Amino acid sequence: MADPRFHLSSGPQPLAAIAAAAGARIEEGVAARSFRGVAPLAEAGPEDIAFLDGRKHLDALRASAAGAVLLTAELAASVPPGCAALVVASPQLAFARVAALFHPGPALRPGIHPTASIGADVVLGEGCEIGPHAVIGDGAELGARCLVGPHALVGPGVVFGDDARIHAHASVICCLAGHRVTLHHGARIGQEGFGFAPTPEGRFVTIPQLGRVILGDEVEVGANSCVDRGALGDTVLGPGTRLDNLVQIGHNVVTGRGCVIVAQVGISGSTRLGDYVTIAGQAGLTGHLSIGSKARIGAQAGVQGDVAPGQDVTGSPAMPVKDALRAALYLRKLGARKPAAAKPPGED
Amino acid sequence: MADPRFHLSSGPQPLAAIAAAAGARIEEGVAARSFRGVAPLAEAGPEDIAFLDGRKHLDALRASAAGAVLLTAELAASVPPGCAALVVASPQLAFARVAALFHPGPALRPGIHPTASIGADVVLGEGCEIGPHAVIGDGAELGARCLVGPHALVGPGVVFGDDARIHAHASVICCLAGHRVTLHHGARIGQEGFGFAPTPEGRFVTIPQLGRVILGDEVEVGANSCVDRGALGDTVLGPGTRLDNLVQIGHNVVTGRGCVIVAQVGISGSTRLGDYVTIAGQAGLTGHLSIGSKARIGAQAGVQGDVAPGQDVTGSPAMPVKDALRAALYLRKLGARKPAAAKPPGED
Amino acid sequence: MADPRFHLSSGPQPLAAIAAAAGARIEEGVAARSFRGVAPLAEAGPEDIAFLDGRKHLDALRASAAGAVLLTAELAASVPPGCAALVVASPQLAFARVAALFHPGPALRPGIHPTASIGADVVLGEGCEIGPHAVIGDGAELGARCLVGPHALVGPGVVFGDDARIHAHASVICCLAGHRVTLHHGARIGQEGFGFAPTPEGRFVTIPQLGRVILGDEVEVGANSCVDRGALGDTVLGPGTRLDNLVQIGHNVVTGRGCVIVAQVGISGSTRLGDYVTIAGQAGLTGHLSIGSKARIGAQAGVQGDVAPGQDVTGSPAMPVKDALRAALYLRKLGARKPAAAKPPGED
Repeated sequence: MADPRFHLSSGPQPLAAIAAAAGARIEEGVAARSFRGVAPLAEAGPEDIAFLDGRKHLDALRASAAGAVLLTAELAASVPPGCAALVVASPQLAFARVAALFHPGPALRPGIHPTASIGADVVLGEGCEIGPHAVIGDGAELGARCLVGPHALVGPGVVFGDDARIHAHASVICCLAGHRVTLHHGARIGQEGFGFAPTPEGRFVTIPQLGRVILGDEVEVGANSCVDRGALGDTVLGPGTRLDNLVQIGHNVVTGRGCVIVAQVGISGSTRLGDYVTIAGQAGLTGHLSIGSKARIGAQAGVQGDVAPGQDVTGSPAMPVKDALRAALYLRKLGARKPAAAKPPGED
Repeated sequence: MADPRFHLSSGPQPLAAIAAAAGARIEEGVAARSFRGVAPLAEAGPEDIAFLDGRKHLDALRASAAGAVLLTAELAASVPPGCAALVVASPQLAFARVAALFHPGPALRPGIHPTASIGADVVLGEGCEIGPHAVIGDGAELGARCLVGPHALVGPGVVFGDDARIHAHASVICCLAGHRVTLHHGARIGQEGFGFAPTPEGRFVTIPQLGRVILGDEVEVGANSCVDRGALGDTVLGPGTRLDNLVQIGHNVVTGRGCVIVAQVGISGSTRLGDYVTIAGQAGLTGHLSIGSKARIGAQAGVQGDVAPGQDVTGSPAMPVKDALRAALYLRKLGARKPAAAKPPGED
Repeated sequence: MADPRFHLSSGPQPLAAIAAAAGARIEEGVAARSFRGVAPLAEAGPEDIAFLDGRKHLDALRASAAGAVLLTAELAASVPPGCAALVVASPQLAFARVAALFHPGPALRPGIHPTASIGADVVLGEGCEIGPHAVIGDGAELGARCLVGPHALVGPGVVFGDDARIHAHASVICCLAGHRVTLHHGARIGQEGFGFAPTPEGRFVTIPQLGRVILGDEVEVGANSCVDRGALGDTVLGPGTRLDNLVQIGHNVVTGRGCVIVAQVGISGSTRLGDYVTIAGQAGLTGHLSIGSKARIGAQAGVQGDVAPGQDVTGSPAMPVKDALRAALYLRKLGARKPAAAKPPGED
């Protein structure tokens, strides 16, 4: 059960409402049955909803005391007695929606905290909550129902659509953002990119960074991640793109729609991603690359060349996944051999 | 000498007090001898205490002008004339305690700064210092002698034991913490983990993250490091576990007691560490792994499988350290050869 | 064109002023010709200044509608009709200066915001701007024309020279800094390094970190980067050294003049860099190393040994660049071969 200290509950909920949220059909006789929340399969009790994602946990399903389980049609027959099968196309997606039914998150408390600092000509949509010590610069515009958390900074002229969630300590300058954009704690958006020119005497002169950051609808930026603004032109995160924590996005990077960028990834300046590109943790991409749509880049990969649409690469330097696995296997075999044999071919 | 601008000194101190802090025995005749502080072996003068950690720096010891040196018994004979040998089991540990005797750190200034923002039903133990612009949410509870630094955020319902040090710009939500926990500047605790489900139309729906972060006694989290709360269930850092800066801890990670996690390491969701696991800088661990107690993981290692207790692994992908060294040596030899010879075995 | 929402323009400017900023000679007849700003070669119109850096973009130059182009002498003949050639030694440097002519950045608004919190005995030079919710500790000293952004923290006793830019959410303690130093958003300077000693019972005792951070003139530290203070003695970034975002600098690291350290690099304690060392993104250096002047370290390199002046290394573990490329090529070939052939030499 979610700790009520931190997570408000709207439970109990009748199975009819749960099934509606999940997009599952249920028999009329059980529609009024009442549930208190969501739980993992192994811990769920008769008043909890659990979910099963794939055959791997079939044993856990059979042993589960859950009152109802979200699962796909072909696994429904394995539900133990007394447990309601809620058949859905994607149990994970249905679970997300059912969990949100029970735990809709804290409601906004519309208004401006007396310690917040609001600049001139700021436009705030209806129902915004501006938290303690928040700072909003001159001429910024926020849509309806936006949250600006404690100590967050929205710089001069910045624009957000409706339903922004700008969490505590985030800063955002030189940025135009769409609807339903979320910046997690300490995210840094729009600061100067890393650009400078050396003088003959060995000093560095900063190249003014004159672009912006454009965030599409439903973009999310993780805690302490950084997105630099463009040098000339813009840095762009396409609609639905999600960055995990501690990610670095260089100036003039452009992503398409729905890219997923896991923690501690770094993308250097001017690299372009298509739609639905996935980059696993700690991978690094050099600058001025083109990464095709639906490409997948492995954890810790070092990408130094273009990647074709749909291609999977990994390793540092990166190569096709199959090749990288083969090379890794080879290295592993080499490492495991007796020292005498471990010399390069042809060496005497 | 420590710069008095930044580090208050309680010196001079008599050797008797120093030896007591170090756990060293001294002859009565020198107990009143006075020292002004601690210093590295090479820079210490007659009024300074230095320490020697291992034979490697024996030459520096012989040349040192230090007034006294913390060292192990077998090296005591090498102390130069005029220098007092303070024999201890662990010179490093003794040095930590002697340095803290001279420099106990700034004393708390109990009270709530007038610019701080304190929510309803907050419980503060005796002697807490709440700094300028700090924010404490409704219902949070802090034990005795806690420091909440400038701009730090303690979210609603959060609980800390005694002697917390929550430094400037740190944020902590959805968290229960033990005694003597330290969060360094900009640490991010308890924010949403990276969890979402795709819709058939290619949108992502956030899976509500309904867990907490549990921090054991004496946990430390480095500057700008991130610890996400659990999805269902908790993210747990066991007692005494220390994170360096810029570390990423995914949702539902669990560590045992006394783990040491160096800068820029990333640990993906649901991976479990035993006790006293050491992870060197920039290593990455994928999710759902089990890492046994006292395992050691090398810098930049890419760990994709379980690691047995006491095992040392490194490389990306990670393998036993001996194997990785052999494979690296092999690669290095290959790289150093003339191009003509550098072709795979059997290639023509 | 730079978006006027975010980037003030001092345009239009006459070509005479532009040429003077660039250090280019022009014919007298065109000195009064007026320009509105800077733009990329492909997008520039007749009132824009562009620049050409190398032969690679000669085609873009020939097709460009730019009114004037900064370029080197040998490319000047390729300028299309109607476009003025501004001949300079370094087009990139000239561009930096011309862009700064058009966009000098927001002027300081001298004064202390009423929500800022200023300690006792603080010394502020002429013309400083102290932003909303900024905190300056007792005894800190700032030179003339310093900016302390929203929520920034300047700790007790900290010293900055003239023209500091301490951006929003940055924190700096235990630090002495020169002139024209810039800390970007969320940079963390001077916090405790990662030092502790184990007790026989398996607890960790913090070793007091008694040093400082010394920042030379014109040092820049990127967003959310961390520079720990020295344990004994100082952590030093030499004049002109620039850190990108999310960089980790351990205690007692010392860099020379003009080092360039790209995003997500980590340098462990007590490693020393000479002058003009370049470290590409995500590279990691272990502690107590010596890296010679003008050495270059590749992206994701894992440096575990000293690097000679002028040497280029890459790979993990790092080796000379040529060797690393050869080893990588070999691995790539191995990976691309049919499984049957991919066995170590001598294996049956």
